[in-house]
Amino acid sequence: MQFVKNKIQNTKVIVRGIELSSLAAGIRYKDRLDLCLISIKTPSNSVVRFTSNRFPAAPIIISKQHLNKKEPKYLLINAGNANAATGEKGEKDTSEICREISKLTGCEKEEVLMFSTGVIGELLPANKIISSLPKLFKINTQSGWKEAAKAIMTTDTFPKICVREFELGGQRYSLVGICKGSGMIQPKMATMLAFVATDLPLSRKALEVISEAALSDSFNKITVDGETSTNDSFVLISTNPENNNFLDIDDPAFRLVKSLIADCCQELAINIVKDGEGATKLVNIRVNGAGSDREAKMIASSIANSLLVKTAIFAEDPNWGRIFSAVGASGAENIKQNIIDIFIGDIRICHHGKAVENLDELEVIAAMRPRNFDIRIELNIGSFSTETWTCDLSYDYIKINAEYRS
Amino acid sequence: MQFVKNKIQNTKVIVRGIELSSLAAGIRYKDRLDLCLISIKTPSNSVVRFTSNRFPAAPIIISKQHLNKKEPKYLLINAGNANAATGEKGEKDTSEICREISKLTGCEKEEVLMFSTGVIGELLPANKIISSLPKLFKINTQSGWKEAAKAIMTTDTFPKICVREFELGGQRYSLVGICKGSGMIQPKMATMLAFVATDLPLSRKALEVISEAALSDSFNKITVDGETSTNDSFVLISTNPENNNFLDIDDPAFRLVKSLIADCCQELAINIVKDGEGATKLVNIRVNGAGSDREAKMIASSIANSLLVKTAIFAEDPNWGRIFSAVGASGAENIKQNIIDIFIGDIRICHHGKAVENLDELEVIAAMRPRNFDIRIELNIGSFSTETWTCDLSYDYIKINAEYRS
Repeated sequence: MQFVKNKIQNTKVIVRGIELSSLAAGIRYKDRLDLCLISIKTPSNSVVRFTSNRFPAAPIIISKQHLNKKEPKYLLINAGNANAATGEKGEKDTSEICREISKLTGCEKEEVLMFSTGVIGELLPANKIISSLPKLFKINTQSGWKEAAKAIMTTDTFPKICVREFELGGQRYSLVGICKGSGMIQPKMATMLAFVATDLPLSRKALEVISEAALSDSFNKITVDGETSTNDSFVLISTNPENNNFLDIDDPAFRLVKSLIADCCQELAINIVKDGEGATKLVNIRVNGAGSDREAKMIASSIANSLLVKTAIFAEDPNWGRIFSAVGASGAENIKQNIIDIFIGDIRICHHGKAVENLDELEVIAAMRPRNFDIRIELNIGSFSTETWTCDLSYDYIKINAEYRS
Repeated sequence: MQFVKNKIQNTKVIVRGIELSSLAAGIRYKDRLDLCLISIKTPSNSVVRFTSNRFPAAPIIISKQHLNKKEPKYLLINAGNANAATGEKGEKDTSEICREISKLTGCEKEEVLMFSTGVIGELLPANKIISSLPKLFKINTQSGWKEAAKAIMTTDTFPKICVREFELGGQRYSLVGICKGSGMIQPKMATMLAFVATDLPLSRKALEVISEAALSDSFNKITVDGETSTNDSFVLISTNPENNNFLDIDDPAFRLVKSLIADCCQELAINIVKDGEGATKLVNIRVNGAGSDREAKMIASSIANSLLVKTAIFAEDPNWGRIFSAVGASGAENIKQNIIDIFIGDIRICHHGKAVENLDELEVIAAMRPRNFDIRIELNIGSFSTETWTCDLSYDYIKINAEYRS
């Protein structure tokens, strides 16, 4: 496999077989893209993963039913209203919108999926969406990825798009992902919608294996505020514009394709943390030397979700005692305080469970000054490692969540 | 049992057999009480419960060793430095201080316990404490509870003291509790120190049963920010000034005494939430109709710790969708979204999983305006209930934790 370098992000990229269409339907915001249609125009395989929240939103309930019956051809996404906690009416609204799309296109209702994000507990203005559909179908374009990334945003401050172009067997392919995040982000997904598509034909089995790997290394590793929403969804689509064979898991190129897609998902996930509500810092938290993968993850998650750690990051305050306490409170049992080391950037600030002597605190503060930096824990117990990304907790998180209804 | 009414909190209360002494040792703060000695002058029983944090502070390690050998006679508490993440030196410092007290009093070293609260990862200024000890022993007084409550404070904004006076069998007794909290408060205790004493003689077994009941209904039910510190401790002391029999669990009065002490602990715990860092609201979260006690608690904890719920409380924003989402994300499995009801104060805002129609939102906002209000969840699944207390997440939480090293 040969990569085509995308030094300047090619936001006019196309994924053959996919058309996009975005417009401002006035669902909640005025004069802002808030409705997006993804049309799949060739044979394809798709996998979809939904939130673990036990109260899934209406569009998730309906989309799950449709997925059980058909391969999706149309994905409709709206921002501004989550259509969650809306009871039977919410499900009926979703069904009616899917039926309208089936009427307009001649596809079956079950070939339409719907995704919603925004405020919970308010009825979806279904009529606004239905009356926008004819216009939506008129503006279909293969190069609409950037507009789509904008149309699915809620409190996001920038659109999130990841583009990869690569060659395999002399043929050129594209991989494009878009996502939205902002608040309610935490392992087990989040108010997170992500749509990733490639025109490299992949078998269903291949897509499933890639999805698991990509999710566990990306969206399931990030945290903004420890929340898991009613609407999280991840979609991975593989089109087949030339009716070639679908590449399967035994193909020699499979491993490379898997890591390419996982890498794209990780880039999207990191951008979600970078754009966390009120975030001024993106911090990579790495835990080494754990006794098990499970304990490594418990510890990383405890640090990444600690409000005291997050406020210290915001303040650029090298108060590593809060990190130390979060490790101890993680629930991990196979840890020892007298052998733990803690690093901020490259500086060891805690050695064998106590402060490093004669450390120049100003150097540590300097290491926390960049927008991105690392916190590393060496448990010195076993050989398991993990990493996660978190952001700081700032005044603006409170402002965004206390002053706007999101 | 007859209660003596304490309409005006009697902060000059005495618990016979207990002397207190507080002074400003300059450990971290200047000219502020930060060192407190509790002396037990009669036969007594005590139970002590420590943090579940796997990295307990040095004073906890040493105090546990002492407790295994002797009944405590002296409790020394310092604020401003947690003596946590201080390695062997921290343990040596604690031991040396206990040894000094044994020298000054003639008691055994193991009859001294030490408790510390404050910043983590800095060595304790043991010399300042040791040089203050002679003076500390000179100012012993039976009526020093209020000063003691002040001396154990860190970022607390007011001292927390609870006084009960009661009669039993014609004899008058006192029950006094003091505690400190503020940040790092969450079920499984917190940076929480609590000392509760009564001059009603209680057997060890009685004290143990009472402690479990009191903790599970009080300090283990509150949350400020979901943190569990390295230093949490709870001490319950029963003195026996007249060498009477210790009251045991088969005594007819036991149940009343237990609820009296539990009630005192609950009052202290609620005051910790009320004084949560930056808190402007105290919210009681009640979960009814759960399928099990475990799931009721998971749901209450998920709501109480949700940053989105806490910022909505701060904003007096009746955005119940965030509460709904927190229930769904709690991990509880035996729940159904189409039968759940949510109340704010007495107003049902969500009925059978969707918004109540024609609700005057201004009325709900008015119900959120008081400093204290209730959120109630009716799961309509089973018959288990629980309650917890939480506070809001405000700009001042960020300010306190980002601008000061606590």
